[in-house]
Amino acid sequence: MLLNKARLLTPGPTPLPEQVRLALAKDAVHHRERNFSALLLKVEEQLKVLFGTQEPVLPLASSGTGAMTAAVDSLFSPGDKVIVINAGKFGERWSLIARARGLQVVELCYEWGLAANPEDIETCLEENRDARGLLVQLSETSTGVLHPVQDIAAKLKNSGVLLVVDGISGVGICPCPMDEWGIDCLLTGSQKGLMLPPGLAFIALSARAWKVAEKTRGSFYFNLPKERASLAKGQTNFTTPVNLIQGLDAAMDLILADGLDVLYRKQWALTMLCRRGIQAMGLVPFARRNYTWGLTSVLLPDAVSGASVQADCTQKWGVTISGGQDTLKGRIVRVAHMGWIDWADVTAALYALNRSLIDNGAFCGSHDFLEQGLASYRAALAGEPGVEPDIVHN
Amino acid sequence: MLLNKARLLTPGPTPLPEQVRLALAKDAVHHRERNFSALLLKVEEQLKVLFGTQEPVLPLASSGTGAMTAAVDSLFSPGDKVIVINAGKFGERWSLIARARGLQVVELCYEWGLAANPEDIETCLEENRDARGLLVQLSETSTGVLHPVQDIAAKLKNSGVLLVVDGISGVGICPCPMDEWGIDCLLTGSQKGLMLPPGLAFIALSARAWKVAEKTRGSFYFNLPKERASLAKGQTNFTTPVNLIQGLDAAMDLILADGLDVLYRKQWALTMLCRRGIQAMGLVPFARRNYTWGLTSVLLPDAVSGASVQADCTQKWGVTISGGQDTLKGRIVRVAHMGWIDWADVTAALYALNRSLIDNGAFCGSHDFLEQGLASYRAALAGEPGVEPDIVHN
Repeated sequence: MLLNKARLLTPGPTPLPEQVRLALAKDAVHHRERNFSALLLKVEEQLKVLFGTQEPVLPLASSGTGAMTAAVDSLFSPGDKVIVINAGKFGERWSLIARARGLQVVELCYEWGLAANPEDIETCLEENRDARGLLVQLSETSTGVLHPVQDIAAKLKNSGVLLVVDGISGVGICPCPMDEWGIDCLLTGSQKGLMLPPGLAFIALSARAWKVAEKTRGSFYFNLPKERASLAKGQTNFTTPVNLIQGLDAAMDLILADGLDVLYRKQWALTMLCRRGIQAMGLVPFARRNYTWGLTSVLLPDAVSGASVQADCTQKWGVTISGGQDTLKGRIVRVAHMGWIDWADVTAALYALNRSLIDNGAFCGSHDFLEQGLASYRAALAGEPGVEPDIVHN
Repeated sequence: MLLNKARLLTPGPTPLPEQVRLALAKDAVHHRERNFSALLLKVEEQLKVLFGTQEPVLPLASSGTGAMTAAVDSLFSPGDKVIVINAGKFGERWSLIARARGLQVVELCYEWGLAANPEDIETCLEENRDARGLLVQLSETSTGVLHPVQDIAAKLKNSGVLLVVDGISGVGICPCPMDEWGIDCLLTGSQKGLMLPPGLAFIALSARAWKVAEKTRGSFYFNLPKERASLAKGQTNFTTPVNLIQGLDAAMDLILADGLDVLYRKQWALTMLCRRGIQAMGLVPFARRNYTWGLTSVLLPDAVSGASVQADCTQKWGVTISGGQDTLKGRIVRVAHMGWIDWADVTAALYALNRSLIDNGAFCGSHDFLEQGLASYRAALAGEPGVEPDIVHN
């Protein structure tokens, strides 16, 4: 306990800035009071900047999966056909939620570690002209891959198919301007890019999605048209986690003080730091390209136990990273760098991972892997050539 | 604000552990309540373990300098002769305090960066057989040097000269067992090794020092015999900073859960990390030997501005380090690694310092200075040969 500070480099929950923690520690306020309504309307305006939309961004008292359910239940009716991009654990979750709603699901599957190809989507749309929606992740957290949402949106432009984007490990981490790209539904959770504890989710619909939602009989709890009407008056349909809203206010102030450009530049630079550090260790990132900006998945050398590496990172160095899920269990580790994480935290995680790998019998790579990673961080932050993001220019 | 977390690597105030911050955030309790008395007596027992004494350790509502003043005013009377070891800013402070009390001061001066030599003290004692006390720092914070207090104590053993030790940047950082070494007065402040904010100081006297204190007319505020009598009943003479005492309880629980051995091993290992990292950068530590365990002073290359390096560390990397004092202003920087600081914080400080030096036109040294420093950290933590402390075995 004395030796190591606890450092949480997981894809949610993420560490909390002091400003947020102090806001969370405030005493309870009542969610029907006028002051609280004013606060709700203030953060709502800030969330619209983050989501890149003119439409309202609704807070839901749920996890991110709750918001995914809200999207499906609000935009589609039993029997409707939807296309699901399934390239990992969270793509699969779209299918499970859609099937639970009684939808016909057409899965466009990709090997874990790959991103969706917009050309495939074009073909799939031709084969499924009756599809009502396409469900995709902005960032597939299980593999560390960013799907080309902007390109997918371009393919869907005049199709009438609603583009529903799970931005849970992407919003506040990489750009995803909803209105500009033509996204019909964007949602996220509180415990990733937003630097808050879990317990809140956020969802926004496009104008045409709102028209559909108004005519769809959804769930009692996730009633988006009613939530929109309430929010216009600074209210929520049901009791909202008031301390999380107070924390959100602090988090959004922190983000918007520096601006989204700084936030995204930082996230990309952290990605380069982690990726180059991993590569300098002689390791192979699990995602070969289109890597997400908030998480680096690392293929472990054969015969190294992922569980043992993870345990050593925590017990010997105080660094908590995530393992692989399902078929990737034990084969990869995932170093998250989202939320209130900076270059020094990622540097610590790289060192902890390197030492834990060595302690588990693996090769250690270059002697200056930290400096190599940090040089890429600086280059990416400065916008030097050769280290540009490989996705936003799609 | 988004890019860098603020990291405070200064010799007080130091960062605070979460347990301490939560304790500090507790509501006020009254300092005459029975529960508070019980708390005061509990932390008192813990402080005795830290100080290595059977005598009481008194809390004073003051800075560390207040406790230095309390020591001088309680143990010496105007006209008394004392020897002061002056090897830096804080040795000089002993002289100022002693002269303010009207004492005759014999200074044993050393060039800044050097530690006292016990042989010199022997000679000085022979020349000043009427000396009543010897005032020294355990750690001279201005230069980063540890004085050989154990050896000095041995020289004073049968002399009747009271050994008064300012342990402000040493207690809770390196071993200084008061009773075992034969120290007559040991004192410290709250904001260094104790992981608390400033505002409290602690002082303990030996049995023979208590006899002197009982006969000395000291100050009204720093009345140690009265404080001792109060503390026996779980009280303080005047209002004590109750929230700092609550924080102290949390800090002592944290320290003693792992034990002093772990604490000191960590501090020594951090010293090796910083020192070897600095050396791998091609820089020269200002203190060539007897270096203190909570701070590394670094001689800057000529023509590099210390103020500019410090400013860059803070502004570009979020890392706050200290500069030199008096004649060392601009010539050295001081990287503190005391209190709630771990290996990853020191690693961050090394990188920030390296980049800031490069940005100020200095040479950068080895490409793997971080890994070199961290290798020494691991070796020191594991107790490997070649990286042992060079002082405790004196």
